[in-house]
Amino acid sequence: MIDKLIHKIKKTKAPIVVGLDPMLSYIPEHIQKKAFEAHGETLEGAAEAIWQFNKEIVDHTADLIPAVKPQIAMYEQFGIPGLEAFKKTVDYCHGKDLVVIGDAKRGDIGSTSAAYAAGHLGTVTVGGSAFRPFDEDFLTVNPYLGTDGVKPFADVCREEKKGLFILVKTSNPSSGEFQDQIADGRPLYEHVGELVAKWGESCMGESYSQIGAVVGATYPEMGKVLRKIMPKNYILVPGYGAQGGKGADLVHFFNEDGLGAIVNSSRGIIAAYKQEAYVKFGPEQFGEASRAAVEDMIKDINGALGL
Amino acid sequence: MIDKLIHKIKKTKAPIVVGLDPMLSYIPEHIQKKAFEAHGETLEGAAEAIWQFNKEIVDHTADLIPAVKPQIAMYEQFGIPGLEAFKKTVDYCHGKDLVVIGDAKRGDIGSTSAAYAAGHLGTVTVGGSAFRPFDEDFLTVNPYLGTDGVKPFADVCREEKKGLFILVKTSNPSSGEFQDQIADGRPLYEHVGELVAKWGESCMGESYSQIGAVVGATYPEMGKVLRKIMPKNYILVPGYGAQGGKGADLVHFFNEDGLGAIVNSSRGIIAAYKQEAYVKFGPEQFGEASRAAVEDMIKDINGALGL
Repeated sequence: MIDKLIHKIKKTKAPIVVGLDPMLSYIPEHIQKKAFEAHGETLEGAAEAIWQFNKEIVDHTADLIPAVKPQIAMYEQFGIPGLEAFKKTVDYCHGKDLVVIGDAKRGDIGSTSAAYAAGHLGTVTVGGSAFRPFDEDFLTVNPYLGTDGVKPFADVCREEKKGLFILVKTSNPSSGEFQDQIADGRPLYEHVGELVAKWGESCMGESYSQIGAVVGATYPEMGKVLRKIMPKNYILVPGYGAQGGKGADLVHFFNEDGLGAIVNSSRGIIAAYKQEAYVKFGPEQFGEASRAAVEDMIKDINGALGL
Repeated sequence: MIDKLIHKIKKTKAPIVVGLDPMLSYIPEHIQKKAFEAHGETLEGAAEAIWQFNKEIVDHTADLIPAVKPQIAMYEQFGIPGLEAFKKTVDYCHGKDLVVIGDAKRGDIGSTSAAYAAGHLGTVTVGGSAFRPFDEDFLTVNPYLGTDGVKPFADVCREEKKGLFILVKTSNPSSGEFQDQIADGRPLYEHVGELVAKWGESCMGESYSQIGAVVGATYPEMGKVLRKIMPKNYILVPGYGAQGGKGADLVHFFNEDGLGAIVNSSRGIIAAYKQEAYVKFGPEQFGEASRAAVEDMIKDINGALGL
């Protein structure tokens, strides 16, 4: 799947991913109203609003981008109907040939990680039949439990040619509390990065590993170091835009081949119509506003990369 | 909720929790057959088998135990139908007045953790209506992202009087890779334990905090140290039984008041009928086998505690 991701990044000239993290407050009134008229002010109504919102954003941006990253928490919070909207979104994006990164940050002891891996990336067997319950292409994974918590995910990736992005240095303000602790003369995130590089060796695509890392745009200096520690691992970079990361901060997340990183923006794209720069589109044309925001993000990043 | 948990532990004289982590391979043939006859060899069929299996185990053990801990991965792997079985299990256990610990190991940046917290422990608002999508009593949380990833969970706990168990030292063999790294002269898990103690201060119940910790039975010496670092935090102890932890290993996880720890067993209870000691019950009487295994576990632990 990393090869498909790279192929699509080259084709679109856009090393970006749109984070489909819909909060109800981002969804324009007219979408909410229609969904609530059909389903009431219920979990089903919220799920329908999310789904219609996503669909319009995907319809307006799919030709410009290689990938989307739905954040499962934003669906899970609306219970079963919310998770149905997650699944519909994944399937719809596959129909548009987008690479889907499930942002789930799962991770547990071995047999439990194996269950998450089967459900999100692989197949489960029921009697004589096999099913692909969620079927994302990549999954984000939390490494706190160590190798035997990650290995079941890597095993499924090897078999299915799918991928992971493992949390190394996250974009949030207090990520340093544990991740920056100095052990053996180096911060913990470097230890994690080294293991990501090692785990990735057994899951190589053509030029990069199926196993990548998450490193926040908000920590560009650390990104520079981690880029060197993990030369064959793609870096998924959150924190651009709304969280404060800028195009210029991103340069060192990339390799000299111009590859190696994919930058996420969620709120900055999906709620673009609420921002001053795109307010002219109005809430009815929120999909157009998102398209314009994607175009601007691509320009900003490619400009910083000197492309 | 910690007060209810402690009240129920005292009443049952059983500082234990039954892990409802059903794998299809644990579920007796006759249950699977009936479920597949009704729903086919489908995700719905698997979910029905899980649900019937859980129901029988809960019916046979609910009067002996204070709490259950469904591992959501085992349901999530079967997609939406699996998660419906999770929700049905949570509701059914509430109907039996059991405390429900959702073992989800969620954790993300602030706004995303807030969504998980709302969906699992609190309420979500849709228009003018509020819903409790999953409504567990406690949730396990991964601390890798630091305070701002944990705070949204703690905020919901304070409001709803619900609780957390935060991963400190996990029971799996490679948990030490990151958790045991020495920083500032102490292993990382001690740093995490100190923050759990601090986070817990703002969420106190009568004698213990709503915020507890996960420390594996497989690491009794570390449990001893962590017990002192977190005197007011309940410790959820996985790894008993199938993972190798024994009653005698558990003594130091408890405080001198005889409280402070709750020991989980999953496979050892729910798949008891497959073990030599309980094979006499046969697969048809698997609920009775689980009951006998619960009684033996209580004896083992109380014996070790000198009760």
